[in-house]
Amino acid sequence: MKKAVVLVSGGMDSAVVLAIAREQGFITHALSVAYGQRHTSELAAAARVSKVLGAVQHKTVDVDLRSIGGSALTDDIDVPVDSHLNPDGPAIPVTYVPARNTIMLSVALGWAEVLGAADLFCGVNAVDYSGYPDCRPEFIAAFERLANLATKAGVEGAGLRVQAPLQQMSKADIVREGLRLGVDFSQTVSCYRADAEGRACGHCDACRLRAEGFAAAGVDDPTRYVG
Amino acid sequence: MKKAVVLVSGGMDSAVVLAIAREQGFITHALSVAYGQRHTSELAAAARVSKVLGAVQHKTVDVDLRSIGGSALTDDIDVPVDSHLNPDGPAIPVTYVPARNTIMLSVALGWAEVLGAADLFCGVNAVDYSGYPDCRPEFIAAFERLANLATKAGVEGAGLRVQAPLQQMSKADIVREGLRLGVDFSQTVSCYRADAEGRACGHCDACRLRAEGFAAAGVDDPTRYVG
Repeated sequence: MKKAVVLVSGGMDSAVVLAIAREQGFITHALSVAYGQRHTSELAAAARVSKVLGAVQHKTVDVDLRSIGGSALTDDIDVPVDSHLNPDGPAIPVTYVPARNTIMLSVALGWAEVLGAADLFCGVNAVDYSGYPDCRPEFIAAFERLANLATKAGVEGAGLRVQAPLQQMSKADIVREGLRLGVDFSQTVSCYRADAEGRACGHCDACRLRAEGFAAAGVDDPTRYVG
Repeated sequence: MKKAVVLVSGGMDSAVVLAIAREQGFITHALSVAYGQRHTSELAAAARVSKVLGAVQHKTVDVDLRSIGGSALTDDIDVPVDSHLNPDGPAIPVTYVPARNTIMLSVALGWAEVLGAADLFCGVNAVDYSGYPDCRPEFIAAFERLANLATKAGVEGAGLRVQAPLQQMSKADIVREGLRLGVDFSQTVSCYRADAEGRACGHCDACRLRAEGFAAAGVDDPTRYVG
């Protein structure tokens, strides 16, 4: 059986990715990157989800991006609420964390090299988050190319693959795929402003996208909301 | 004047890179990544060197790679001494930190994006460290390509450049270039096993390469050695 490193954030997308990697027969090593996000209850959800979905281990690596700032998710900029994902709004949302996916994939790459894993899985999605440049298919392809130049496995071995199986799925598709694979979405936390118990605000962009996903899939929203 | 993020490790190579970036007229923001290296006196040297060479600020970002292991520089594997850089030895040395340059450049990329800097400088060198896959020119070119796909600056702006001005220099060339630019090498720490005061062991690969550089350049070695 082959090993994979799966980036698990605690949100719904990466939970589905972990379930997909397991279905494909991988021994899964789940990785969370603690980058100073406000919503630390996501990390608790990541540990829970990894265990329930059969990862052989879950590791959290600290990367302190607070000191470089630049995002509503790591510093004092307010997370927007009730923005209705305004198509006339800024092209790249203020919740964009500079280079986040590059950094998280880099750490996953380092761990994959140590483990001897040839596959990296991540939950990036080009449909719902098209405002984030590092969620586009060409970004993933460029990272895979880099990974194969950067590492022993790429240079001496059989090569590395970066898999982003949700890339072209809608949020409703992701909900359906997760339900097919037995993912318990009530265990996941997507909210940018979740409280310490992981209860969602219901008003930030992440909450709205998630709620719209359940509605579009025609299933009950199991999210635990505040109040 | 244009801003640049310069990766500064505390060693001699990145000190020379910082001096080069300053000579080219950049406002320099120095960045060190604390990845759990044993030789923390390097980080003190990085702060010192950044100040002396005119960086407008120096920041250290913590990325805890100890938890993923896999290198003599972050875990319990012994750093080799008196190995004479054996050409029959392993192609990739045990001091290779998995994905280190990818991770450090990723963090630099995030900070560059926050600062509005279009240039990243790093001290990678393809000559002396040819055993490290992430020191090769094709790696740097691939990272630059990734950077331009991953960020606002790449997508909406004028693009990012990753500059590795030492890439094709010998250690003697680096010594001469540093002396031309007024770098005080006694302030820098290259040793993998430096003590708390930054004094070098004189026996690890980094010490040997450095000493050979001074010898080949025909200048006195200002390194402070233990004992």
